[in-house]
Amino acid sequence: MHIAPSTPLQTARALASEFARTVVERDRQGGTPKAERDAIRRSGLLALSIPREFGGLGGSWAQTFEVVREFARVDSSLAHVFGFHHLMLATVRLFATPAQWQPWFELTARKHWFWGNALNPLDTRTVVKDHGSYREFSGKKSFCSGASDSQMLIASAVDEAAGGKLLIAAIPSGRSGITLHNDWHNMGQRQTDSGSATFERVRVEESDLLLDPGPLSTPFACLRPLIAQLHFAHVFLGIAEGAFEEARHYALTESRRWFKSPVEQVHEDPYVLNHFGDFWVRLQGARGLVQQATAALDDAWSKGPALTAEQRGRLAVTIATAKVAASRDGLEICSKVFEVTGARATQASVGLDRHWRNLRTQSLHDPLDYKLHELGEWALNGQLPTPTFYS
Amino acid sequence: MHIAPSTPLQTARALASEFARTVVERDRQGGTPKAERDAIRRSGLLALSIPREFGGLGGSWAQTFEVVREFARVDSSLAHVFGFHHLMLATVRLFATPAQWQPWFELTARKHWFWGNALNPLDTRTVVKDHGSYREFSGKKSFCSGASDSQMLIASAVDEAAGGKLLIAAIPSGRSGITLHNDWHNMGQRQTDSGSATFERVRVEESDLLLDPGPLSTPFACLRPLIAQLHFAHVFLGIAEGAFEEARHYALTESRRWFKSPVEQVHEDPYVLNHFGDFWVRLQGARGLVQQATAALDDAWSKGPALTAEQRGRLAVTIATAKVAASRDGLEICSKVFEVTGARATQASVGLDRHWRNLRTQSLHDPLDYKLHELGEWALNGQLPTPTFYS
Amino acid sequence: MHIAPSTPLQTARALASEFARTVVERDRQGGTPKAERDAIRRSGLLALSIPREFGGLGGSWAQTFEVVREFARVDSSLAHVFGFHHLMLATVRLFATPAQWQPWFELTARKHWFWGNALNPLDTRTVVKDHGSYREFSGKKSFCSGASDSQMLIASAVDEAAGGKLLIAAIPSGRSGITLHNDWHNMGQRQTDSGSATFERVRVEESDLLLDPGPLSTPFACLRPLIAQLHFAHVFLGIAEGAFEEARHYALTESRRWFKSPVEQVHEDPYVLNHFGDFWVRLQGARGLVQQATAALDDAWSKGPALTAEQRGRLAVTIATAKVAASRDGLEICSKVFEVTGARATQASVGLDRHWRNLRTQSLHDPLDYKLHELGEWALNGQLPTPTFYS
Amino acid sequence: MHIAPSTPLQTARALASEFARTVVERDRQGGTPKAERDAIRRSGLLALSIPREFGGLGGSWAQTFEVVREFARVDSSLAHVFGFHHLMLATVRLFATPAQWQPWFELTARKHWFWGNALNPLDTRTVVKDHGSYREFSGKKSFCSGASDSQMLIASAVDEAAGGKLLIAAIPSGRSGITLHNDWHNMGQRQTDSGSATFERVRVEESDLLLDPGPLSTPFACLRPLIAQLHFAHVFLGIAEGAFEEARHYALTESRRWFKSPVEQVHEDPYVLNHFGDFWVRLQGARGLVQQATAALDDAWSKGPALTAEQRGRLAVTIATAKVAASRDGLEICSKVFEVTGARATQASVGLDRHWRNLRTQSLHDPLDYKLHELGEWALNGQLPTPTFYS
Repeated sequence: MHIAPSTPLQTARALASEFARTVVERDRQGGTPKAERDAIRRSGLLALSIPREFGGLGGSWAQTFEVVREFARVDSSLAHVFGFHHLMLATVRLFATPAQWQPWFELTARKHWFWGNALNPLDTRTVVKDHGSYREFSGKKSFCSGASDSQMLIASAVDEAAGGKLLIAAIPSGRSGITLHNDWHNMGQRQTDSGSATFERVRVEESDLLLDPGPLSTPFACLRPLIAQLHFAHVFLGIAEGAFEEARHYALTESRRWFKSPVEQVHEDPYVLNHFGDFWVRLQGARGLVQQATAALDDAWSKGPALTAEQRGRLAVTIATAKVAASRDGLEICSKVFEVTGARATQASVGLDRHWRNLRTQSLHDPLDYKLHELGEWALNGQLPTPTFYS
Repeated sequence: MHIAPSTPLQTARALASEFARTVVERDRQGGTPKAERDAIRRSGLLALSIPREFGGLGGSWAQTFEVVREFARVDSSLAHVFGFHHLMLATVRLFATPAQWQPWFELTARKHWFWGNALNPLDTRTVVKDHGSYREFSGKKSFCSGASDSQMLIASAVDEAAGGKLLIAAIPSGRSGITLHNDWHNMGQRQTDSGSATFERVRVEESDLLLDPGPLSTPFACLRPLIAQLHFAHVFLGIAEGAFEEARHYALTESRRWFKSPVEQVHEDPYVLNHFGDFWVRLQGARGLVQQATAALDDAWSKGPALTAEQRGRLAVTIATAKVAASRDGLEICSKVFEVTGARATQASVGLDRHWRNLRTQSLHDPLDYKLHELGEWALNGQLPTPTFYS
Repeated sequence: MHIAPSTPLQTARALASEFARTVVERDRQGGTPKAERDAIRRSGLLALSIPREFGGLGGSWAQTFEVVREFARVDSSLAHVFGFHHLMLATVRLFATPAQWQPWFELTARKHWFWGNALNPLDTRTVVKDHGSYREFSGKKSFCSGASDSQMLIASAVDEAAGGKLLIAAIPSGRSGITLHNDWHNMGQRQTDSGSATFERVRVEESDLLLDPGPLSTPFACLRPLIAQLHFAHVFLGIAEGAFEEARHYALTESRRWFKSPVEQVHEDPYVLNHFGDFWVRLQGARGLVQQATAALDDAWSKGPALTAEQRGRLAVTIATAKVAASRDGLEICSKVFEVTGARATQASVGLDRHWRNLRTQSLHDPLDYKLHELGEWALNGQLPTPTFYS
Repeated sequence: MHIAPSTPLQTARALASEFARTVVERDRQGGTPKAERDAIRRSGLLALSIPREFGGLGGSWAQTFEVVREFARVDSSLAHVFGFHHLMLATVRLFATPAQWQPWFELTARKHWFWGNALNPLDTRTVVKDHGSYREFSGKKSFCSGASDSQMLIASAVDEAAGGKLLIAAIPSGRSGITLHNDWHNMGQRQTDSGSATFERVRVEESDLLLDPGPLSTPFACLRPLIAQLHFAHVFLGIAEGAFEEARHYALTESRRWFKSPVEQVHEDPYVLNHFGDFWVRLQGARGLVQQATAALDDAWSKGPALTAEQRGRLAVTIATAKVAASRDGLEICSKVFEVTGARATQASVGLDRHWRNLRTQSLHDPLDYKLHELGEWALNGQLPTPTFYS
């Protein structure tokens, strides 16, 4: 059966519309959105970025992130774990051999596996012990988004014997020794399960390790952090679009004119219109940059191992630019929307504050100031970003 | 016993320090902070603004708002209901006869009464029925901050027979026919009980009504909305100061340097220092304006009925200026503090987001744009604000 | 002879490079840049937007505005009169019959005519007197950019007999009765000759009048103000790009590190890098929007009279968005560049302030607030802009 | 004769009113405003900060800076050289012995001497040669504000024999070997004569040198840079106040309503009023901080040598805060005023752009970013600024 190009987005819209009915309540609860994760599983969208020859939908990054953004407009927690699932798939694709990732892709597409994250390279508490024929991972790991209720994990550990080198493995989430702590109780992105994990002598086989070509080894492999960064830009933009859309709906249907307004209706108020004009300009600016960056990623992705360091570097600049704009303008919009809705929109049942909380939380993944610094190196000195897990 | 001038602030600090231990949890719960309200009652601070001849502490507005701000630094819900309590006392002082307010002042000081608000003049659903010797108030009223767990209420109703005139009364909260709904479930200021009330044929005696000189009748009576506006400025500033202080503590004790930072410690990071410099300039600017406005209010208050419309108008400008600055710079600080603390400060147990939620919620009391419009009338046209319940 | 697609831009670059050598001095002098206007004439670029069948270069709007922006990077006065020349050509193309504009196009291409502007529809001092077989224009007209040293003028006059209708004519600049006053002495855009003109009983034939289809008559004719608005967006963006490029060059070659800087060289300074990162994000955002709008204009242009009101309205939104972004971000950049160059860059010979003066001046063509209002009508109410000479 | 406290300000207002008549033309010309400097000489205000016992007016810093600000509202070049004159007097007062500064004070008061600046400590090209009984200064010095047409100079030179120590001397401007170059042709502050000087074997006696207690030697001596910084804050604030006042006047008398405005007159336009409200809030915030800092300086000044390092440090924070606010908000106002005046206010004869040019130029004296850094050290780490010539 042929899957029409529009199907993933249509599917995502139907899911998002379902998520919207419960998102305010689920935001209050936090925890794992099991029902919604299962709905995503059933939708087939976990195979979106998997090529057709491995049973996937063969979606481009543009299509994959379009779904991320669609989710983010109503539920940026689900958007995040969904996007990170595809980032984990890209991780094995980029860091491991076809003999490794091809079966993982097939199983993921067939069994609707959800992949989770336990990679945080800045948390060096998990270490490797080498037993010759196999290794053991032991220690703690923070910010493990989407690890709960997942089938597979991307985990990292420091190999002190190898000079502190980071080893990355793809392992079943249920493997003996892995404990996922339900300790993500944060102010935003509350259903991302971005809590901590403990590894107690978790056995890791050679075939689990992503060694060939390995992390950040080639320009092509170095696309991995860029996919992560662009994922964030889509999440931020989707959140801002959601805040805009909800504020618009509220202003048109619920808000009351201020008694000093020169006009009869909120939607004619000169200050309300000025704010909406401002929101629009900001959203359009960010949208343009994010779309441009997404097309550039698909282009770089299609080059495969032929991708040069220069091409990868220019893509990094393009993506960093989009992320900064989506973050800054998004935060401004998520805070300012209240000035067009008025005080009654602060009711918890409206849930309008979740957008600011979600964006503020997720935008701290890596500091804005150092992203601007990186872009300054390019703008002033013509220096392309050195690949790291954050650039 | 002589009360030393410094006592109210010392008392407030001790209370604030207690509130701080539970504020994050109480913010989560919402509802009425009964224990804390009772602690305020026991502290004697409900008599702070009551002159000594009526058993009060004889505090100036500077002293009263100093306590509001002290509370707001940790718990802006309690700051709000505490400040509004004193606003309600000022309301009877300004709108009613000494024969009315003097006993109310004495009883409040003696019995530690807490006054609540049911005045919202923009909500015209509560109406008056005139029975000759008495009247009845019937209808709904929204945004009744501090009405729950109060002893006295300031309530308003529209007298349609008198051309829609607003009648204001001071009545016991427990009077027959009054129902206070625990329906304030909002994104911020969560323990202000700013929900709705229903009046069902609530009997209102002539002696309950604030008719002489009546609402907004004389320049002196017109201080009432200015006290409310300055109260908000203190709440906003206190919130921003609290956010700053918590961010500072977090940055010094918990934050981790970004791996690309040129320095060893967060507190030496050039971008972190730049942000703190910016926060400082904003806070100092708002502090200066708020202090200046507070001194001007005490001065106007001391003039009593001799206060002229011109003097009252200039005070209105001074207070509006302070409120705009505290609101704008406060929101900026409450959102930006996360850029100096980093991602881990989004843990719900840190509670750092409550400052933005509280300020964002409370700052919508009346629109910033129309406050700027009012100040523009002054700055451009030399036009002093026309007294309303919001200016 | 076949003109390669890259030629106009190459030609423009050569010209811009010449303009750059004298622009600071010419900015000081003001007046008409006769030598530079003649160099543009000789370059053939005045025929850039004229179709090949009429002897032109057949450039698209993208190509035409690329040249405007190239000029604006160094000399936004020449950029403005060059772009307005093409706007005048578009005006006759859109408002008049082929029998009118085809010869004008041919003559312009052949004789290197420069067209100037005397259309300002908000200045209603020039009026029409109808003599039956011909008309007379008499009165004053302000903001006549590029009228001096032009061969042809687009002029407007109010026909009071026809209810205040605006009549627009294309007339030789040298026609009897026309006086162009060299009275443009302004703080920016100093060589645009945007001064005033006087018409004393200037004879206007029927064949000079743009009546069929006439001004703002059809959706296609209504492209005229959109071309003007997009022209401004390109001028603003070009100015900002020029300011950025000059600041970059100055910082790399002239600036001295502040004695408290933690690094040895200005180009490594954390704050300097942060500013450049910020400039870059702003420029890229505006560039994306401007490019998108330009492509959309070429698309609409190619539709000709088949263009619908809806399509024209959407284009108006796209162009207004780009113009607001280019104006706001451009002003920010033109003022902030000094923080990366330091005090010595204020030397008049550097000329770095001309960018702010030029952009500030030109950005007042029509108010930003009302452009945001217009965009708010779209963003909130889904209302497309009503065509006027400014939207 | 008793000088009434209001006299200096009245005198300044009369002068400023004269300056206003020619300031736009003089800004165009640049160069030395000889007539206006002589008018200041005749006014007696050059003795404003000199104590009465030495023939001066005995003005406080508050009074002295009030005059600086009054001048800055119309002519910030004259404001700058006037304030720097008093800074030079403070320099000898703080760095030298009474036996040195008392005669200088008396002569200055009696003969209306104007003091100029040739101190720039960051320009190390002027060096000392020690001849035993006297020294010689030789070399170049940049940014010598007010040196032209002065009677006395404060000059500095590097004593390489003493490890690069900075020697500072007070010498007659006409002394042999001093050449003042009329080479200040900058975009703003055009009549400050802040060009360069050449010293060719200029003989400097021991009694010319400011050695006891010497530069930045004691906390009290370290007031010198703080007086300079506060001077700048007053200049910036005065410029912003001038821009506001001229924009207000223009909007009320010259501006035309935009044809889409919902109201009849510019002064009722909602967006115009909003901007003026914003300008007002910014000005009031900066005014409060600048006034507070000025009172604190007078207080510290009155302490004399008893001033502690801690007190001096807190004053430094207060002054830095005021300077940052005046700089940031001032620039915003000077650029935004055009949005309330409209395009016609760009006429050179209006001169409204000089405020931005003047403030932008003068605000680069030392970088804003490092001032924020310094304030961040205080706000985050409780670290008071280390005295330098810039903090």
